[in-house]
Amino acid sequence: MTGERFTVVYSIRGDEAAALEKARIICFEQTVELDDEVVTDPIIRDSIVGRIDRWTAVGEDRFEAQISYAVETSAGELTQLLNVIFGNTSIKAGIRVEHLELCESIFTKFPGPRFGIEGWRRILDHSEKPLLCTALKPMGKSVEEIAALAHRFALGGVDVIKDDHGLTDQPFCPFHPRVEACVAAVERANRQTGKNCIYVPNVTAPAPEVLERAHFARKSAAGGLLIAPGLNGFDTLRVLAEDAEIDLPIISHPALLGSMVTSKESGFSHAVLFGQLQRLAGADASVFPNYGGRFGFSREECASISESCRAAMGSYRSIFPTPGGGMSLERVPDMLELYGEDVMFLIGGALYARSPDLVDNARYFLSLVGR
Amino acid sequence: MTGERFTVVYSIRGDEAAALEKARIICFEQTVELDDEVVTDPIIRDSIVGRIDRWTAVGEDRFEAQISYAVETSAGELTQLLNVIFGNTSIKAGIRVEHLELCESIFTKFPGPRFGIEGWRRILDHSEKPLLCTALKPMGKSVEEIAALAHRFALGGVDVIKDDHGLTDQPFCPFHPRVEACVAAVERANRQTGKNCIYVPNVTAPAPEVLERAHFARKSAAGGLLIAPGLNGFDTLRVLAEDAEIDLPIISHPALLGSMVTSKESGFSHAVLFGQLQRLAGADASVFPNYGGRFGFSREECASISESCRAAMGSYRSIFPTPGGGMSLERVPDMLELYGEDVMFLIGGALYARSPDLVDNARYFLSLVGR
Repeated sequence: MTGERFTVVYSIRGDEAAALEKARIICFEQTVELDDEVVTDPIIRDSIVGRIDRWTAVGEDRFEAQISYAVETSAGELTQLLNVIFGNTSIKAGIRVEHLELCESIFTKFPGPRFGIEGWRRILDHSEKPLLCTALKPMGKSVEEIAALAHRFALGGVDVIKDDHGLTDQPFCPFHPRVEACVAAVERANRQTGKNCIYVPNVTAPAPEVLERAHFARKSAAGGLLIAPGLNGFDTLRVLAEDAEIDLPIISHPALLGSMVTSKESGFSHAVLFGQLQRLAGADASVFPNYGGRFGFSREECASISESCRAAMGSYRSIFPTPGGGMSLERVPDMLELYGEDVMFLIGGALYARSPDLVDNARYFLSLVGR
Repeated sequence: MTGERFTVVYSIRGDEAAALEKARIICFEQTVELDDEVVTDPIIRDSIVGRIDRWTAVGEDRFEAQISYAVETSAGELTQLLNVIFGNTSIKAGIRVEHLELCESIFTKFPGPRFGIEGWRRILDHSEKPLLCTALKPMGKSVEEIAALAHRFALGGVDVIKDDHGLTDQPFCPFHPRVEACVAAVERANRQTGKNCIYVPNVTAPAPEVLERAHFARKSAAGGLLIAPGLNGFDTLRVLAEDAEIDLPIISHPALLGSMVTSKESGFSHAVLFGQLQRLAGADASVFPNYGGRFGFSREECASISESCRAAMGSYRSIFPTPGGGMSLERVPDMLELYGEDVMFLIGGALYARSPDLVDNARYFLSLVGR
């Protein structure tokens, strides 16, 4: 054992004695999975069982336990690291992962975002101002129709034009021809406008096909990849991010992750799920529902995600918080105040709904953010 | 479009008008991801947008919407099927997936459990009575120590001896030598007892290594596989189940899935998450926390899981509900009444804690279930 440890901050509901007992149980549950009295080996007690390093009251009937674990418990595997962080304890109501403090060998083992905010800005040739992203939809359209939409959005100057996350490989719009057609459509528009808009296909797929689709996207000159770690697992996101041959920025989509934040007292904090875990797994942009849209995230929760995407975190690059939905002329000043300039706004439905002229709609939304 | 549809039953909180509006939004959110008024193509409205087939009041401020989707929306992919079932809507508090009604082409595309209850009983040569499973732990022990535990449990007649789900490939107990040592230890005990106990290694691992570990387990004569779909994704479980060369029964572990059931009003019902989805993905046994143990599941929730593991579900085999923890002499009659005989009891800590004689402890727990 090297003595190197990583730390998880859990918030725990209950009166102080009960909460502290729960914290003690977490130390065992997440490692040896045996009761205190059964773990007799002093070396295992000392080196494997988690350790409460700090205990703080954070509200009435709410406490924070800062628990550290030997890095060796994670076996150098992202799957097992997630398991130590929250595997079994995720099943207990009233305990939430609020924050992670990782350690040097984890930052080395999992190098995190390959591009980050700087990388996106270099590719898209925009050194400042918010970026604009949109989604190609609805499901049901053909390859030609989807590519025509991509062309219009690129003409309008949308920086990142991604597949809707529900477009995978449906018979009416299969993956491979869609990627080729959309890349060609966006390139055609770029030649006309002189811009560097990119097309980002969705590679969320059956486990054995993710890498093939990602490599195909790369060979077809797509500009990035979209994946939903709630569907394919965070480790698959990591594999894409670490692949030097693919070498494309990655947008992470929150599909199926929602239940992990819908309770205030269980699951993960918004900052961990949509910020820290995304960077740990290598996403360059993290999609989440904007406040005031059709999902229930509060302004404060969105602020915490945005902060977590960009705050110092070991050697990891800052990534784009990518709030989706809820963007209207009236709300723009407040959104700019909240997110600042280092944000990628994802405008889906509103870009389709404003008028039938998608080029004009795109220019309108760009003008909202001063571009 | 074939006209074939699958159905998801969502429960929705709210007064009836608001809940019905939420149900209407689900139909769009899970498919076209555009507002009603933006979807103008009549073919897409008719064939892609979900359809409310039934609407029922199930309590005060609680309703059930039975929504069906064209099977083509799932693209024949388990990842995308899960996405249509609950991808974006998982982010909305107050909506829960209560039940799935799949359709013929899904049952054909995803063949489900390869072994099921019958398969386990054939392998283990027990045509009746509950089976007994235990876990090798704690993390921190060496390969030799873990194998010695496996030997003792097999001598005591525990049917299924699995890795604790936190044992992966730690430096102090690496995967490959552990598998070989535990297989040998269990075989040695079987030769002495004449029983067919099996060792089941944990293949939860980095995405690129799961299949290698599973094939290694098969070649080493392990008797089954353990995997946590919350860590590796349900589709990786499916890949293992469908691999004819691996051809081993699979135990699914709930690590990191907990947050999806800790709210009564969001996420998945216990029956869907620990029953239906497990069978869809091909698990042969589904581990969940028993009532009365250290997790908060109620007797009724456990009953619903047990029912969902064994109820008719298309062409799928019934699988073993595998309640873990909470087993004591006093509770056995009630547990047998609840689960019946077609159950695999997972006894972890209690088997270690009862006395230092693990062989005797195993025999004691077998005697509790009339064996």
